[in-house]
Amino acid sequence: MTDAEQSRVANDSWDVIVVGGGPPGENVAQYAIQGSDRTAVIVERELVGGECSYWACIPSKALLRPVQLLATARNLPGVQSLVGDHSLDAAAAMRRRDQFAGHDGDEPDASQVQWANGIGIEVVRGRARLSGPRTVQVTAADGTTRTLTARQAVVLATGTTAAVPDVPGLREALPWISRDVTNLHEVPRRMAVIGGGVVACEAATWLRAMGVDELTVIVRGGSLLTGNEPFAGELVAGQFGRSGIRVLTGSQATAARRTAPRDTGEGRIHGGPVELTVQTPDGEQTLTVDEVLVAAGRTPNSGDVGLDAVSVTPNGKGFVEVDDHLTVPGTADEHGEWLYAVGDLTGRALLTHMGKYQARIAGAVIGARAQGASLDGPQFTDRADHGMVPQVAFTEPPVASVGLTEAQARDAGLQVETAEYDLASVSGAALLRDDYEGRAKLVIDAATDRLVGATFVGPEVDELLHSATIAVVGQVPVSTLWHAVPSFPTISEVWLRLLETLAEHRRSRASEA
Amino acid sequence: MTDAEQSRVANDSWDVIVVGGGPPGENVAQYAIQGSDRTAVIVERELVGGECSYWACIPSKALLRPVQLLATARNLPGVQSLVGDHSLDAAAAMRRRDQFAGHDGDEPDASQVQWANGIGIEVVRGRARLSGPRTVQVTAADGTTRTLTARQAVVLATGTTAAVPDVPGLREALPWISRDVTNLHEVPRRMAVIGGGVVACEAATWLRAMGVDELTVIVRGGSLLTGNEPFAGELVAGQFGRSGIRVLTGSQATAARRTAPRDTGEGRIHGGPVELTVQTPDGEQTLTVDEVLVAAGRTPNSGDVGLDAVSVTPNGKGFVEVDDHLTVPGTADEHGEWLYAVGDLTGRALLTHMGKYQARIAGAVIGARAQGASLDGPQFTDRADHGMVPQVAFTEPPVASVGLTEAQARDAGLQVETAEYDLASVSGAALLRDDYEGRAKLVIDAATDRLVGATFVGPEVDELLHSATIAVVGQVPVSTLWHAVPSFPTISEVWLRLLETLAEHRRSRASEA
Repeated sequence: MTDAEQSRVANDSWDVIVVGGGPPGENVAQYAIQGSDRTAVIVERELVGGECSYWACIPSKALLRPVQLLATARNLPGVQSLVGDHSLDAAAAMRRRDQFAGHDGDEPDASQVQWANGIGIEVVRGRARLSGPRTVQVTAADGTTRTLTARQAVVLATGTTAAVPDVPGLREALPWISRDVTNLHEVPRRMAVIGGGVVACEAATWLRAMGVDELTVIVRGGSLLTGNEPFAGELVAGQFGRSGIRVLTGSQATAARRTAPRDTGEGRIHGGPVELTVQTPDGEQTLTVDEVLVAAGRTPNSGDVGLDAVSVTPNGKGFVEVDDHLTVPGTADEHGEWLYAVGDLTGRALLTHMGKYQARIAGAVIGARAQGASLDGPQFTDRADHGMVPQVAFTEPPVASVGLTEAQARDAGLQVETAEYDLASVSGAALLRDDYEGRAKLVIDAATDRLVGATFVGPEVDELLHSATIAVVGQVPVSTLWHAVPSFPTISEVWLRLLETLAEHRRSRASEA
Repeated sequence: MTDAEQSRVANDSWDVIVVGGGPPGENVAQYAIQGSDRTAVIVERELVGGECSYWACIPSKALLRPVQLLATARNLPGVQSLVGDHSLDAAAAMRRRDQFAGHDGDEPDASQVQWANGIGIEVVRGRARLSGPRTVQVTAADGTTRTLTARQAVVLATGTTAAVPDVPGLREALPWISRDVTNLHEVPRRMAVIGGGVVACEAATWLRAMGVDELTVIVRGGSLLTGNEPFAGELVAGQFGRSGIRVLTGSQATAARRTAPRDTGEGRIHGGPVELTVQTPDGEQTLTVDEVLVAAGRTPNSGDVGLDAVSVTPNGKGFVEVDDHLTVPGTADEHGEWLYAVGDLTGRALLTHMGKYQARIAGAVIGARAQGASLDGPQFTDRADHGMVPQVAFTEPPVASVGLTEAQARDAGLQVETAEYDLASVSGAALLRDDYEGRAKLVIDAATDRLVGATFVGPEVDELLHSATIAVVGQVPVSTLWHAVPSFPTISEVWLRLLETLAEHRRSRASEA
């Protein structure tokens, strides 16, 4: 250790300390010091890059992409005869997944650490806990501790962990969680998936394509992907049915028992079969499966970060609530605000891109406060989390949505108008593959003539979503959207059909009136 | 003929007469009578549905779609090993093309005529000519004539025809034009393509994939796809090179001679080989090819519509100029405006979707004038043709653009800012296929902080374009676009990277100042 390093460690004082090095943690550190000489450190107990890079978005999208492409190829003459009825080359798909998720090297996060260091962010390995205002104690793997202090900000970005429901025997049966299924190495023959949200539906999609023979999805509610427009879950369930995935709605696991459980590591088969008891509307069933995937929500990692040391209480669900500057209320000291939270831990929107967005805002806020500047500009306030959140489920078909559903808009008391259109009737969609099936819907606030929500479900709608996100966030009036001409023949032409449908509704209402 | 029919033919008077039944003709008729009891007739000399449906957009997209999908499959582990190095199943691709373009039945436009009749539009077969104000003479295939008169409007929507440049011997060599190449039935072994625009580049893409062995593209200018950001033509040329298509820039055909020319019908090989003399920057070359495709611009079909009878002179290029209500200036009579033009014939933007857009505006204008209503609302004025035109070239990679290029914005005297980003560096793009190559660029008017143009080049950017179209047309400030969060991991995240790049430029300019 050089003298300079020694003195810094002794001092161990930083402008910005970020606890958790997932994408939100990385971004908030970057934005907080950008264009300044402020110092920042990220404390990470696992891998810099976080859940998203190694165990969530990246590996799951890497697995889903060839599944989607093969589904299209099977239905597109010109390519159809080339792929025949061959199944996915699962081994190749897993190898590519390993490359993207960094599982093919010794130091999976080397490039992310290099990126951080390259822009002047230090990385410290260990578990971090607030031990008082502006003070973070880090315990390294070897048990040594180190106390960091922050001049400007401590940002909590510790994310969430898969929740395992309290079903007798389930924990002992060593179920797979999201990390195991995105990083599967052995494809079980029989599986049950507990949950019907995005993680469950995406995983079921690739599991079936990769060769799981008997696959049952167990959903408490009446449908898949609740929280979306109802047709989203219906279209995905229809495809599940055609591809041989069984969906048990209104059902829940009540007991689990595994023969010879053994912890074999991520993505391996954890021992003998599991007997899973499921209560369905038609009575009790017992499923015998090789693995059970639990994809039933997330638990915030707020228990072990020392919130008590600074008198912060998480909300009822364990999330750390923040204001629209991503600041934890009630923690300011005589020098001002210093405690922030970003990403899943805030419970605002459990999505990588929203966490990164919050991080950009928080970073800008920290920078401005460090300079004593005002927070008046639009870059300092989280707007998008208020009813403008986009999300894509990369299921087959994909589900892309932004803002409010019709039901949410009505609940919010808006004067709601809607327009729906069958995507298969759009030339640009029909040309993409022979069995194109999809649906689109706009939700409009009639009082302002502005779009407040949109949903697109169908093959290759993924990139179409951002048009709706810009329309919602930009508050572009419907009468102006009329002049945003979609290119022919693209799926985007559904915009024209939706606006025509809306105009038709308005005409027929006017003629009735 | 019933009495009622006889009396109508004798009278033959309509509210709206549309000359030309392509998509713009269909749309203007629909919009002009919509929600009213006005009558409309479309006069069509070929097929209702027009160039786009049978000989342009639809068949070309049908051919290009499997080409694009196969290119992706070849570069995506998981599917790669399934397609191996097999070539496109050209026969299957052509059969699907025939289904989409209606070439697989006896009455290709039966469904379009049914659509028109279903919404109360009459279809008359024959060649139409203005014979005086509000008067159109129709000559049927059997030589009988019929004179139609219009109470509200005559709309010219006769489109364009492929231009064949004045090269000695070229016409006599019976070159292929766009109609032949979109509807090819036999794949020539050797071909030359004259032209480097969208039609030429799209056709070269599918010709090579369908098995043309020696393929040379002859371009007058220095690059492909001029009029776009320079990187668009460069990326397409790079892919042409890798796939074995030769591009001769700065070159032009100077003579052609065909052995045993015979008119074999659309998409067939027209006789013996053609010797094509080409002047290149390195001297003269002679190419021996089986077919020459001429894709060197379009000639408006304005010569034969009787413009002289109403004292209208087309512009220097033969287009019929209109104002922003799509009205032909200087033709009003004592009852008001009655002559309109829409679509390619106006020369505003030679694109199906823009023609349909103009048609919607013109239809609304005709409806409003028929009711004596004002033309104040936004739906009555063509805005999008003024620097907000979107276009997608479905090449490999696709080129999607809207509004102004940087060069065009500078020429227009704007205070230009730009941001560019390598699409391969966006996770959502890299995940799509292993060799992802692409680029994106935004052009901003610094004076207003508004986007005035955008270009995306790369696999699967097609649906991404509409986000930029909405941003441009909606005049969404850059500071607001910041809150339109792109979903992770989609290609749309390039928006974030572009906005970050722009902010970086602004910071570095500010620190220099």
